[in-house]
Amino acid sequence: MNALFYAVPAAAILALLFAWIFFRQMMRESEGNVTMKEIAQYVREGAMAYLKQQYKVVTIVFIVLAVFFAVLAYGFGIQNSWVPFAFLTGGFFSGLAGFVGMKTATYASGRTANATMRSLNSGLKIAFRSGAVMGLTVVGLGLLDISIWWIVLNAFVDTPDMSQKLVVITTTMLTFGMGASTQALFARVGGGIYTKAADVGADIVGKVEQDIPEDDPRNPATIADNVGDNVGDVAGMGADLYESYCGSILATMALGASAFFGDTALQMKAILAPMTIAAVGVALSILGIFAVRTKEDADLQGLLKSLSVGTNLSAGLIAVLTFGIFRLLDLPNWWQLSLSVLSGLLAGVIIGKVTEYYTSHSYKPTRKLAESAQTGSATVIISGVGLGMISTAIPVVTIAVAILLAYGFATGFRFDPDLLGQGLYGISIAAVGMLSTLGITLATDAYGPIADNAGGNAQMSGLDPSVREKTDVLDALGNTTAATGKGFAIGSAALTALALLASYIEEIKIGFGHLAAKGGEMAAQFADLSRASIPEIVEHYNITLMNPVVLVGVFIGAMMAFLFCGMTMNAVGRAAQKMVIEVRRQFREIAGILEGKRRPDYTSCVRISTKAAQQEMVVPSLLAIAVPIAVGMLLGPAGVVGLLTGGLGAGFVLAIFLANSGGAWDNAKKFVEEGHFGGKNSASHKATIVGDTVGDPFKDTSGPSLNILIKLMSMVSIVMAGLTVLLHV
Amino acid sequence: MNALFYAVPAAAILALLFAWIFFRQMMRESEGNVTMKEIAQYVREGAMAYLKQQYKVVTIVFIVLAVFFAVLAYGFGIQNSWVPFAFLTGGFFSGLAGFVGMKTATYASGRTANATMRSLNSGLKIAFRSGAVMGLTVVGLGLLDISIWWIVLNAFVDTPDMSQKLVVITTTMLTFGMGASTQALFARVGGGIYTKAADVGADIVGKVEQDIPEDDPRNPATIADNVGDNVGDVAGMGADLYESYCGSILATMALGASAFFGDTALQMKAILAPMTIAAVGVALSILGIFAVRTKEDADLQGLLKSLSVGTNLSAGLIAVLTFGIFRLLDLPNWWQLSLSVLSGLLAGVIIGKVTEYYTSHSYKPTRKLAESAQTGSATVIISGVGLGMISTAIPVVTIAVAILLAYGFATGFRFDPDLLGQGLYGISIAAVGMLSTLGITLATDAYGPIADNAGGNAQMSGLDPSVREKTDVLDALGNTTAATGKGFAIGSAALTALALLASYIEEIKIGFGHLAAKGGEMAAQFADLSRASIPEIVEHYNITLMNPVVLVGVFIGAMMAFLFCGMTMNAVGRAAQKMVIEVRRQFREIAGILEGKRRPDYTSCVRISTKAAQQEMVVPSLLAIAVPIAVGMLLGPAGVVGLLTGGLGAGFVLAIFLANSGGAWDNAKKFVEEGHFGGKNSASHKATIVGDTVGDPFKDTSGPSLNILIKLMSMVSIVMAGLTVLLHV
Repeated sequence: MNALFYAVPAAAILALLFAWIFFRQMMRESEGNVTMKEIAQYVREGAMAYLKQQYKVVTIVFIVLAVFFAVLAYGFGIQNSWVPFAFLTGGFFSGLAGFVGMKTATYASGRTANATMRSLNSGLKIAFRSGAVMGLTVVGLGLLDISIWWIVLNAFVDTPDMSQKLVVITTTMLTFGMGASTQALFARVGGGIYTKAADVGADIVGKVEQDIPEDDPRNPATIADNVGDNVGDVAGMGADLYESYCGSILATMALGASAFFGDTALQMKAILAPMTIAAVGVALSILGIFAVRTKEDADLQGLLKSLSVGTNLSAGLIAVLTFGIFRLLDLPNWWQLSLSVLSGLLAGVIIGKVTEYYTSHSYKPTRKLAESAQTGSATVIISGVGLGMISTAIPVVTIAVAILLAYGFATGFRFDPDLLGQGLYGISIAAVGMLSTLGITLATDAYGPIADNAGGNAQMSGLDPSVREKTDVLDALGNTTAATGKGFAIGSAALTALALLASYIEEIKIGFGHLAAKGGEMAAQFADLSRASIPEIVEHYNITLMNPVVLVGVFIGAMMAFLFCGMTMNAVGRAAQKMVIEVRRQFREIAGILEGKRRPDYTSCVRISTKAAQQEMVVPSLLAIAVPIAVGMLLGPAGVVGLLTGGLGAGFVLAIFLANSGGAWDNAKKFVEEGHFGGKNSASHKATIVGDTVGDPFKDTSGPSLNILIKLMSMVSIVMAGLTVLLHV
Repeated sequence: MNALFYAVPAAAILALLFAWIFFRQMMRESEGNVTMKEIAQYVREGAMAYLKQQYKVVTIVFIVLAVFFAVLAYGFGIQNSWVPFAFLTGGFFSGLAGFVGMKTATYASGRTANATMRSLNSGLKIAFRSGAVMGLTVVGLGLLDISIWWIVLNAFVDTPDMSQKLVVITTTMLTFGMGASTQALFARVGGGIYTKAADVGADIVGKVEQDIPEDDPRNPATIADNVGDNVGDVAGMGADLYESYCGSILATMALGASAFFGDTALQMKAILAPMTIAAVGVALSILGIFAVRTKEDADLQGLLKSLSVGTNLSAGLIAVLTFGIFRLLDLPNWWQLSLSVLSGLLAGVIIGKVTEYYTSHSYKPTRKLAESAQTGSATVIISGVGLGMISTAIPVVTIAVAILLAYGFATGFRFDPDLLGQGLYGISIAAVGMLSTLGITLATDAYGPIADNAGGNAQMSGLDPSVREKTDVLDALGNTTAATGKGFAIGSAALTALALLASYIEEIKIGFGHLAAKGGEMAAQFADLSRASIPEIVEHYNITLMNPVVLVGVFIGAMMAFLFCGMTMNAVGRAAQKMVIEVRRQFREIAGILEGKRRPDYTSCVRISTKAAQQEMVVPSLLAIAVPIAVGMLLGPAGVVGLLTGGLGAGFVLAIFLANSGGAWDNAKKFVEEGHFGGKNSASHKATIVGDTVGDPFKDTSGPSLNILIKLMSMVSIVMAGLTVLLHV
């Protein structure tokens, strides 16, 4: 093993160490007065209770799946024997990352509220550092898991041929990505249903019907809403990005091992490259986090600038240092590959900016959307849907160009089937570049919900309205700075999913290897196929767009994206209706709530969200696992590649549409609240609240789950390739 | 030429003859009292004025494109010299079909209202026979155009090799499909924007703000709304289905010529088969239309039954007669191909039933949707979006199974690249089967808007409310019986688009033929490529799912579907806002409108819709033409096939989602109006009106345009293949 590898566990420990330091720093702050503590305690307990419940369900699913993989591996010998364990660790670490992030957030929000009383800057510091705890935990645990498996598999895999051994190790490691994806999907879907059921329910009765403000303690759903922010936006996001981060690194390692098959030294370099970039990214993230420093009396512009300094510094440095890393690794086409990474980074920045353009009320589209509120909620919905759909154009073209450039640089712009592996490696490593500074970009993303919850705490504790105003500023700030991080997350998901397509073909070959090992009269042919190139496998299964089986797969893949969204959307709708009925009931039956004389029954609302999330998350998540298996068994590899392509194409675009429509509706409402088109409590305002409410499941439940869905379907296909090959030789 | 061919022009003349007879019959009916005549006149004039305006714009576009094709053909010699003319006739006949349908509808609605005063049955008869005028005109003009070109090209194409000649003739004929598609897209988009701007605008101010009923003469937008029904739902639909009908026949002819290349007799049979099925379908449609007979005192159930008798009779007979036709043509695998057709027909029926299940308020999904109105408009929107997305699952799986069966029967279930052409022929002829009885299925579809307009006329003329109630029954009846027709339209669009993918590859070969004819040092290689099989061309351009260029194309194709929808959706949103502002202004400024003392200014609303439709239809429509050309020039055939596949996959699913969400919202509103969840004028009712209004552009503008978009992109790619090949050898 190359000595450079040790930078990876070192970076993992460094990340976790700083996460611990930031956590301790935050814990030393005061949580405020008795009411504030009490409310924070409520939220914390609700969140933990939910997570416990969620992990119970997920554990059952994991055990069932692990047993299934074990049967395939040990009973039928058509799967690698490490798969069940890798799958479990991926799930475990992903869940742990979400848990730590959420635990931190629930401790931090009260403290942020309290610090914000002192100054905006103090509030920012606590919220941002707490976000950094999650960012660093995610990357730290990710690199730790990767390091452990790399060491273990290097020690135990006993394939004599070194080049083959590297392929086996890296493709085995990919299966821990499936564990991470499965956990992430449950976290995003369950958390997303929980939070949006509460949010939508609270908004409809509170804001629309009773005209009481957000987070008002008189609203029975308000605690559930705040709990939801933690389980959905924090724990869900943590598990999600853990999956993305590890997925991109693992896919690149696997592609590196296969692209340079036969040349062990080059393979090793190609495997080490993504890990090293990630390790350097950790250091740069920590540097960036420390670079976020503000003067005690800083204004909004000052804070915005200092946050941007942090993320831009990290992203800029990784772009430069990539050249150094590849040079140091002595990769033959080091500067070309660096340009591939640069293409990815640039694409991420552009997607982030475009997202900001379409969803921030500093720009025309969202302002026009707010304007459409003057003619009622129907035009707000129509215009918001239109805006979201149109907003997909530039990101898709950007990612298309990035794909061609990343592939082109890596192959000298020869779109030749023989250079496919190298080109795909270029695409995949571009995704790693985008996610390498996740430590800080996730911090800017995760601190938003913390500030949001701090505002909730301030409101419910009856603090001076100025505190809430400041936390709102922090929250809004987070939305702006998070844009780049979101751009990286979206862009890298598309690139990684593309890379996983190629990994699937690699896994098919390994499947043939298993078949060959079992002997029989076709063993020689299987052995040949296990050594075939990607284009040869493509030809063997006729994975062309003229094959009706492939096209049928494309149809089903596109449908899956919509079906999955529809199921999660309906889950939110159903749960929100229950919430509305319960909140209305409390207002009606418990006298004195609206006058603030009696506490509403918060726990019944928490119970509704918890139950709904638990019930509703299982079917769509299992569908994401079952459909690729079924398509593989019925239609074979050609159908599977079609499925993944259709899911990726439609899902990627659908995800951008949902995210941007939702974001624009949210900010159009804020724009009206700032006094435009009638301001707060006007008819326009009511219309934008409808838009915002509709946007909630768009942007926080269905949309973000899609990226995971796409990758989970790929991961499942990869893990199940052995079975598919057995049925479709 | 086989004598059987003469059945085709004969059927065309028969269809047009009966269309004429039905038209005369309708015209003999009385148009009612003076007010009714006056209102009908208003609507007729508005509709004609709009169509004139629309055809002006479209004519310019056609001239520009025809000149462009002429330059490519005569200037550069990279295109067939017949293309500009074929393109123009396709556009002309498509426009004519829409024009005739609309003219009939505007004469028929007043007469239907008048007849409905006598009895439900009399109203049904006039409306349905008038719908049949459009149905028969579409199929008549379609077969006429096909016959003419077949005769002309057989006489004038002077390719010495007969087998090659048949390929040239059929692929040349395909380009008249592009003309039809272009016209259809403009008609659907322009008409869709027109009608929904008026409808949404009228509903928001009339129903939501002022609590006055639909089609109330006090509403200034009501004439525009009724005009819109004619230009959007009638003229747009006519042009649309003309395109689908011809497209499916032409694609099948082209595939037949190429699949059996080398065997002239077999080619001829394969070319004649779709034409003959269509010709027989005309006769069966007329038979079905006459079978729709009701007793004078028939109730709703009776009418429903008699309408179903007509469509089921035609569809059932075509299923049976297909076996006879193929036997008569002496096709070697006649019964297998008949089973392919049967698969398509069954798929169409299933899709129709599923559509009905999800969108009719006789079933659970729409009732649940109506129930969600109790918690406000936001939950209606969320649940409606969820419903629409979920409703895509069964239709997509159905069409997937139909594709595999149609392909499988045609090839003996051997998914072997060598049998590709025959398999695709099987898929394509299944689409022809679905559309063969368009004469009657379109009649059941087109009579809905006529009944709707009759209701408008009754309302505005101040007839007894019982008349309006009866026309509403007729309209609702139409929605139910139209389901099968819609299922056929959706299903056939997917199958035809798939067939066009293969035609594109064929056209690539013809492009190589042109290059070879120009001589030069690569002429021999070009000649080889022009004689290559589809799999060889696929290999030449590496049209596999591992080619990043293909994947980039898939991304862009999926994006195109969303971008196009977003643009048309926003166009409706913008125009509706203008309409709302104008209607509000009239209510405010013109005293006495609401009291019915003064007539509102209808023409200003008509002007807003007309202007908006004209301005807004151009950019999205041209985009549909420009993007495939640009992708072809930049990314070559691999990118184009990716584009078409991505557009087809995402677009097909998106279209079903939009149509079903819109349909369900519409009927959820009707369900509430029937007295559920509070009934008319309750809060639930208002919430469902928001849903219905949002659904308007979903189901009547963006959704229906998508099917045309998909096919137009294919047609453009096919026509421009010569240029693409020139740039990407």
